Amino acid sequence: MSAADLNVNELKALPARELRLELETLYAEYVACIDSDELERFPDFFTENCLYKIQPRTNYERGLPLATWLSESRGMLKDRMVAIRQLSTHGPRHLRHVVSGIRILGWDGDALRCEANYAVFETLPEQLTRVFQVGRYLDRIEVDAGRLRFAEKLCVFDSELIPNTLIYPI
Amino acid sequence: MSAADLNVNELKALPARELRLELETLYAEYVACIDSDELERFPDFFTENCLYKIQPRTNYERGLPLATWLSESRGMLKDRMVAIRQLSTHGPRHLRHVVSGIRILGWDGDALRCEANYAVFETLPEQLTRVFQVGRYLDRIEVDAGRLRFAEKLCVFDSELIPNTLIYPI
Amino acid sequence: MSAADLNVNELKALPARELRLELETLYAEYVACIDSDELERFPDFFTENCLYKIQPRTNYERGLPLATWLSESRGMLKDRMVAIRQLSTHGPRHLRHVVSGIRILGWDGDALRCEANYAVFETLPEQLTRVFQVGRYLDRIEVDAGRLRFAEKLCVFDSELIPNTLIYPI
Repeated sequence: MSAADLNVNELKALPARELRLELETLYAEYVACIDSDELERFPDFFTENCLYKIQPRTNYERGLPLATWLSESRGMLKDRMVAIRQLSTHGPRHLRHVVSGIRILGWDGDALRCEANYAVFETLPEQLTRVFQVGRYLDRIEVDAGRLRFAEKLCVFDSELIPNTLIYPI
Repeated sequence: MSAADLNVNELKALPARELRLELETLYAEYVACIDSDELERFPDFFTENCLYKIQPRTNYERGLPLATWLSESRGMLKDRMVAIRQLSTHGPRHLRHVVSGIRILGWDGDALRCEANYAVFETLPEQLTRVFQVGRYLDRIEVDAGRLRFAEKLCVFDSELIPNTLIYPI
Repeated sequence: MSAADLNVNELKALPARELRLELETLYAEYVACIDSDELERFPDFFTENCLYKIQPRTNYERGLPLATWLSESRGMLKDRMVAIRQLSTHGPRHLRHVVSGIRILGWDGDALRCEANYAVFETLPEQLTRVFQVGRYLDRIEVDAGRLRFAEKLCVFDSELIPNTLIYPI
């Protein structure tokens, strides 16, 4: 059984251990979408009225609003993916994500609150791979049209600096 | 069902696959405690008579006793956490852990022997994130007051060098 | 229950969530073999007629044949391990793997197709740990003599460069 064709009551009835595996699958698919450069599929990981934000830890912890990336709907994410494809001002690069330590924090109505640590590596042509960004996902996940999607995804990264430029989602 | 309210017989009766998920949860919580800088909660991950040690791989493999960090009880860990908070000789920093490849090695009486790989990243203010330390956890885990705790945790790291200083636990 | 004494029909009958845990165990054992420098056990992770290949992403995506490492049987892997032990032209080093985001892509006859992200760190004597290689495993796994083994393992790495030299398997 995969996360497909779930409804929220089935999900709430899952033992914590099984729920954890559903989340492992979701994060694996999410990460593979970015790392395989299949950005056209990226907005499908989100609900229609979603919030996607990438923010330095300093700003997040002080409650400051400034974010490196802010998209407030699936439509805005679609626009952004088109923009990435059409922009010619940035060179090619590969990202590679490692996600670890998924924590299930609990249900908030029909949304499941989760956190996970991430490390993202960047490789530019003819350069060695380097650490691009590490941080924590703070997520609200819902069952939407039979699968798990992010209603809210905050990527809170530890550094105040970004090597090179942030083009791709995290 | 979470790791809470477990007793050792229930734990031993768990199929290996379910036991693995209990451990995933334990490591996720342990890591989140450090990375979220909630050090006051750190000693609770250990039994009263515990051993916590951070040691370079060279020393560990040669059986040499020298360790970068050695605490021989939960009380010593509590003291150390207070010292970290009160010391003003080190600047702010963020750690971020990625744990992977948990191996269940078997029961040793009522203690479960486990190993896992870890990579820890460090971020200093106004600097890029860097690899701080990678290595292996060599752990003995017990059920204590209804939850899993480390009776022994060895952090064996691959390098003989530590960038900057080791202040926080690993 | 571990991956030992499995047969392929039992494996196919496992719910996806349980199958995922068998794979977690396989990858954890595989990685521990390399990171603990127990290379003599390495060929046992493969079927007799296996394919083991390490290839830069650029070559892989363009369908170019050039690979950094190509072994086409378990026997060739055994030879290679002996060569690593007997070669004196390379200095000591430690590798440390972090594997994340295992994806089960489906059955192809009696072979299970899987992918996972990996990050490998290298530590040389008296040097700091650095990122050695990140990439993706593209695997075909079979049940062979009661345990899971790789019939095919492609390690596709993101960079075109390798720091230092590739001596150990990935």
